[in-house]
Amino acid sequence: MKLILAILSNEDSSTASRALTEKKFQVTKLNTTGGFLRAGNTTLMIGCEDEDVQEAIELIKESSRKRSELIPSSAGYDMGRYMSFPIEVQVGGATIFVLDVEQFLKI
Amino acid sequence: MKLILAILSNEDSSTASRALTEKKFQVTKLNTTGGFLRAGNTTLMIGCEDEDVQEAIELIKESSRKRSELIPSSAGYDMGRYMSFPIEVQVGGATIFVLDVEQFLKI
Amino acid sequence: MKLILAILSNEDSSTASRALTEKKFQVTKLNTTGGFLRAGNTTLMIGCEDEDVQEAIELIKESSRKRSELIPSSAGYDMGRYMSFPIEVQVGGATIFVLDVEQFLKI
Ligand code: NI
Ligand code: NI
Ligand code: NI
Repeated sequence: MKLILAILSNEDSSTASRALTEKKFQVTKLNTTGGFLRAGNTTLMIGCEDEDVQEAIELIKESSRKRSELIPSSAGYDMGRYMSFPIEVQVGGATIFVLDVEQFLKI
Repeated sequence: MKLILAILSNEDSSTASRALTEKKFQVTKLNTTGGFLRAGNTTLMIGCEDEDVQEAIELIKESSRKRSELIPSSAGYDMGRYMSFPIEVQVGGATIFVLDVEQFLKI
Repeated sequence: MKLILAILSNEDSSTASRALTEKKFQVTKLNTTGGFLRAGNTTLMIGCEDEDVQEAIELIKESSRKRSELIPSSAGYDMGRYMSFPIEVQVGGATIFVLDVEQFLKI
């Protein structure tokens, strides 16, 4: 038995949580802040059999792929008018720890 | 030294937390959502000596026994009147992970 | 790779978090309540290389040194007047668990 701790952005953690639950993984969300990924992040806690660790990691990877998103945040003054320029930000990514579980009980 | 992570319903976690604290176990509550037990759940984190793990597990078990409760939620329309039927739901249960601790410090 | 879980008072956890981040440690804060340190506490989760564990522990120690603080809470009635006496309380302290990490991924 292993315990997977995965730190993801809030947005990606919902996607990952859904994908994992669909494949019958049992997921617990820990409310976390700061740290690995600056803004709002979530730590997913997944207990699973040793042979299922790789599948869980794949599902987390797919849910948190690094990608660019355009956000409308930069603004400038040009030719007498204010203009807004979308800027590209990197989102996604995950930090994953796999721990060994000595004893596991479901009661 | 071991670290016990126990996921319980919010209600049972308070009972377990009290029972554990009375027996001098040191308990930390992590605010968690979803997962193992659908509705509001809590993860208790308990650090203890190897020889005390079994006692802690027993206390958690006693606090989270699976049991039925009647809740007044189902409603039907019968003979011209609305009627409310209590329904039986299963509550309780816990998911417990015991991890080995390599180094423990209390400063 | 190791995973350090450190339970500190909310106040000290901010100091520790800053100190750790400055030294390039990656810190995630878990919102926790009760337990080891009665009042509001925080659990810091730090993943780091085996050879950096000691440095992380030192930074946590320095941020949570046990110390006395005077708080103006005790009041008494003396010579016909109410008087407030500052009382000394012990603050600080930390509980630290170091766990072994079987697999670590940053994606
Ligand atoms: Ni195993
Ligand atoms: Ni031990
Ligand atoms: Ni290692």
